[in-house]
Amino acid sequence: MITRENLDSMLTNRVGLKGPMTTPIGKGFRSLNLTLRKELGLYANVRPCFSIPGYKTRYDNVNLVTIRENTEGEYSGLEHEVVKGVVESLKVITRVASTRVAEYAFKYAVDNQRRKVTAVHKANIMKMADGLFLRCCREVHEKYPDIEYNEVIVDNACMQLVKNPSQFDVLVMPNLYGDIISDLCAGLIGGLGLTPSGNIGAGGLALMEAVHGTAPDIAGHNKANPTALLLSSVMMLRHLGQNDVADNLQQAVLTTIAEGKFRTGDLGGTATTSEFAQAIMDKL
Amino acid sequence: MITRENLDSMLTNRVGLKGPMTTPIGKGFRSLNLTLRKELGLYANVRPCFSIPGYKTRYDNVNLVTIRENTEGEYSGLEHEVVKGVVESLKVITRVASTRVAEYAFKYAVDNQRRKVTAVHKANIMKMADGLFLRCCREVHEKYPDIEYNEVIVDNACMQLVKNPSQFDVLVMPNLYGDIISDLCAGLIGGLGLTPSGNIGAGGLALMEAVHGTAPDIAGHNKANPTALLLSSVMMLRHLGQNDVADNLQQAVLTTIAEGKFRTGDLGGTATTSEFAQAIMDKL
Ligand SMILES: CC(C)[C@H](C(=O)O)[C@@H](O)C(=O)O
Ligand SMILES: CC(C)[C@H](C(=O)O)[C@@H](O)C(=O)O
Repeated sequence: MITRENLDSMLTNRVGLKGPMTTPIGKGFRSLNLTLRKELGLYANVRPCFSIPGYKTRYDNVNLVTIRENTEGEYSGLEHEVVKGVVESLKVITRVASTRVAEYAFKYAVDNQRRKVTAVHKANIMKMADGLFLRCCREVHEKYPDIEYNEVIVDNACMQLVKNPSQFDVLVMPNLYGDIISDLCAGLIGGLGLTPSGNIGAGGLALMEAVHGTAPDIAGHNKANPTALLLSSVMMLRHLGQNDVADNLQQAVLTTIAEGKFRTGDLGGTATTSEFAQAIMDKL
Repeated sequence: MITRENLDSMLTNRVGLKGPMTTPIGKGFRSLNLTLRKELGLYANVRPCFSIPGYKTRYDNVNLVTIRENTEGEYSGLEHEVVKGVVESLKVITRVASTRVAEYAFKYAVDNQRRKVTAVHKANIMKMADGLFLRCCREVHEKYPDIEYNEVIVDNACMQLVKNPSQFDVLVMPNLYGDIISDLCAGLIGGLGLTPSGNIGAGGLALMEAVHGTAPDIAGHNKANPTALLLSSVMMLRHLGQNDVADNLQQAVLTTIAEGKFRTGDLGGTATTSEFAQAIMDKL
């Protein structure tokens, strides 16, 4: 569980790196990942997703970033059984949170030399909720006239992503669509073992994390692929302004994978975690 | 708009075939597609999705069916602005509708020689709503011990679908996940121009439809690909027990595409709609 001490440490140091944590299904305690996001006000979830050089999947040249509203939407936690057999679950969309994440997305695009922001929605059905989200994105876009902006319905976005992901650049969306689409995108380049993630809060608070599962079946076997955690560390270093160190680490990780000699089992190799890590350290 | 006469005709004849209809975004009238589904009680949306022989995409051997709860969930239409800038949208999950669509999915698996049913959910977050959906699926599964059953979280399902779609057989899920995943699956095999869809109601009522857009830009140009509508007709014929006629039509459509000579523009060919249709008729 998360102790008060953990939370206080995050609030004091204002940056963190965390491994995966398990969320029980259909019952049990509230997701710890969610607790952290809510308690720390981590309003934007940022997941860069790019094809890993030398690691072949069905897709080349994927290079996009999903930016997900991280505090509300379908994750409100507000559910109740109205009468027996009838459950209502509340999706909450606010102007404040939608504008905040849209601001983050456009600013991210500018800071990272990205060209286009795409808002993903289902405003043909959730006309008020997703309609509000879109209105906020449009308003923010007015302040960023040099960034291209378009809107795609979530089902169509998923179809377009599997047909031709290189049409996308920065994607911004409500919580659940971001959850779904970031996993879909990870699948395009090889899976969650390869994709970093950052949760950004007010005043520069940031918690980076690997978002894959805890894989209890291989705990202690020296088999896990640390790439997602290492690339999350790269994001953390950039967040701290340590761009040279970040570049070096990213280069060392990617070159090690590209060379192919020390890949972990999930990438078709036979290296242990330690061997993979040693190969990276040798390059550093 | 849909007239009372249209609805009455569907209720009398108990079977229909419909083309695409536009739904306004963020405002305007309620989706006509939804109105039909609700008014006619079309509780299950069935979309078979298989690789089209001879039409190459990144994926081979896709052969799965998505079965989507078609009446409730995120499509309740219940939304309101609580205070300015705060919108709530209700997701409604009921035991009745969840059990009904689960029954349909398992029965479909048996009737169509399918082996496995996978329930897609987000019950780690919507513990009560999606938890109820899962409980209903589990209960129905008990009556179908010969069909394999498993559960996959919706984000992971999307990742798995783009990594290795052939691990799936029949997928059953609440409304929005079905909307998203059926489009994703269509993308795997070439797009909505190639995938049929059926909406199934009580007492054998059925409305088949092409689910792609209305493409007003090419209206009247004799360019549209009628494959989705033709394969939906095949589903309709099977629903009416006309299996031989259905097989013939499906064969003629697929062979015409496989031969490649009379493909429409969206499939990389130069044939007009009429030429493509004539080629199919010649085979019949
Ligand atoms: C583990 C789960 C609660 C979490 C989520 O749904 O947000 C995960 O899927 C993610 O994307 O970080
Ligand atoms: C047009 C739209 C209302 C519809 C839906 O969301 O169900 C469509 O995407 C579909 O899948 O049939």
